[in-house]
Amino acid sequence: MAALAASLGDPAGIGPELLCEAWLHHREAGMAPFFAVGGAKLLAEAARQRGLNVPIQPISDPAEAQAAFAQALPVLGGDDGEYRPGSPDTASAQIALASLTKGTQLALEGAASGIVTGPVAKANLAQIGFTYPGQTEFLADACAIAEQDAVMMLAGPQLKTVPVTVHCALSEVPGRLTTDLIASRCKIAAEGLRKDFGIANPRIAVAALNPHAGEGGKFGHEEADIIEPAIARLRAEGIDATGPHPADALFAPHARGNYDLAVCMYHDQALVPLKALDFDAGVNMTLGLPIVRTSADHGTAFGIAGKGLAQPGATIAAIRMAGEAAARRLGQ
Amino acid sequence: MAALAASLGDPAGIGPELLCEAWLHHREAGMAPFFAVGGAKLLAEAARQRGLNVPIQPISDPAEAQAAFAQALPVLGGDDGEYRPGSPDTASAQIALASLTKGTQLALEGAASGIVTGPVAKANLAQIGFTYPGQTEFLADACAIAEQDAVMMLAGPQLKTVPVTVHCALSEVPGRLTTDLIASRCKIAAEGLRKDFGIANPRIAVAALNPHAGEGGKFGHEEADIIEPAIARLRAEGIDATGPHPADALFAPHARGNYDLAVCMYHDQALVPLKALDFDAGVNMTLGLPIVRTSADHGTAFGIAGKGLAQPGATIAAIRMAGEAAARRLGQ
Repeated sequence: MAALAASLGDPAGIGPELLCEAWLHHREAGMAPFFAVGGAKLLAEAARQRGLNVPIQPISDPAEAQAAFAQALPVLGGDDGEYRPGSPDTASAQIALASLTKGTQLALEGAASGIVTGPVAKANLAQIGFTYPGQTEFLADACAIAEQDAVMMLAGPQLKTVPVTVHCALSEVPGRLTTDLIASRCKIAAEGLRKDFGIANPRIAVAALNPHAGEGGKFGHEEADIIEPAIARLRAEGIDATGPHPADALFAPHARGNYDLAVCMYHDQALVPLKALDFDAGVNMTLGLPIVRTSADHGTAFGIAGKGLAQPGATIAAIRMAGEAAARRLGQ
Repeated sequence: MAALAASLGDPAGIGPELLCEAWLHHREAGMAPFFAVGGAKLLAEAARQRGLNVPIQPISDPAEAQAAFAQALPVLGGDDGEYRPGSPDTASAQIALASLTKGTQLALEGAASGIVTGPVAKANLAQIGFTYPGQTEFLADACAIAEQDAVMMLAGPQLKTVPVTVHCALSEVPGRLTTDLIASRCKIAAEGLRKDFGIANPRIAVAALNPHAGEGGKFGHEEADIIEPAIARLRAEGIDATGPHPADALFAPHARGNYDLAVCMYHDQALVPLKALDFDAGVNMTLGLPIVRTSADHGTAFGIAGKGLAQPGATIAAIRMAGEAAARRLGQ
């Protein structure tokens, strides 16, 4: 299997130091080999400032990464710069975008077995003409996939969730929910769980929108009008979907064993339980793409970048999950 | 201190067996003495069916409960009936209401140091003319407190939350939120934490309504228009309120140490993290009442009543919390 490509994210954020930390943990974490896309000089400096002994091995071809990985962090030649943690600017945005673009391309070509993306600052990227709301939409476009068919899944050791609606005001959520949208998200997610996690018949628990699942229409009708028809359609197609489940019961410890994935109606419904339970190990995985893509479920954290405070758990988990998904796809 | 009154809840639910279980655990859990309000015969049968050895001590005055409690579960004379778990009817609703009414009266008179209410079925109670949406509203009325001034707090070992809006459709939440309502809920809750938990300067974290706290108005304006003014008003009055905090970050393990209470904008925002973290030990406490009132944060669970499956953790926690709050009020 080819090595994984790891993009730097905004080099003024915590991405570079976490890649170095992750490499140091590669043996005990059982990680697949990965290489950083660009940034040899700034990665070396990020390791130094964090007090880490991470040898950097410049490579000119991703195929060299496998052999180099056991002894050093392989870094593919590419955009590089000064390491200025906490000070994002257009130069750091350029490096982030170059790393993301190149890593995506390598994954699409098969020269990398997948891409693990580092955290970027959307506002900073927008200043250099990046027009996507986030990396997921960039990746969907690069893969020639419609934006709504790239499905964000949050995965931690205790829970996997998919939000049906994502970045919109809570007041807009009810109006954005449709039976088609819910059914489509669930189908893509079920296929992703089969392909990338080896779950033959994924159990999909669909959350209700309203408290107590609307209590028979007393607190809202979206369950009966929108969500139940989606579940019925999925079941008719052979997908093991259940619900709508009252959200407060769905994430209780004994309930979590009853499903492989919880499909949620809005951002915080999916993110609140995940971060409450699995904060330092949450992975954001994009399902529905022809390539494997994961990222740590946190931002650039400019405020703590370069200070040795950022926790590497989510980055390590993202690399492990990408490696396992890539191996599973190869075996199919 | 007087003993606590424990109402039976609907006797066809899991209330009676859990009171018996709780009594069995009273020593190791360090519970304050309590007595059941009515139902001596059905409690004895609930214990028998669950295989518990719980001696029942009928009492005719709450003042007898203290002395009896170490050796037996004291039960005040009152409505009683056959134990028919899983089969609620108007007779079981009558027993539930009589127990609740009498227990509330005893707490108001000071003959009981507080009330721990058992789970009732609202639909079943409605059939016998109970017109309140739930027990909390009944208690507010009995205490001559305006309904909106009785504040529901959910409390577990890891987290305390207060929902600003409770039982309404999610689509109605934005329209129901006002600066006055949020500030009022926070003030009552802060006073409750002082009075019942001995927290001199409670740290109140106020959750945002929208994902990423609206991201500067990109995903909704309620943070700037409604929530921030409430926080400013509270701070001007000397209450340590912070926020609006993005909800997904607010319940992460490291964040939970930064506040004593999270005030949430809607039901599931408050209940999802609480039940994910503290499912079998969640207590519902009503703040703002002249009496101490707690209950286990679960329903009647008719489906498992009488089968020995119901977990007593929340009932035990509710009795403990009520006893501690009552003792603290006495000491003030």
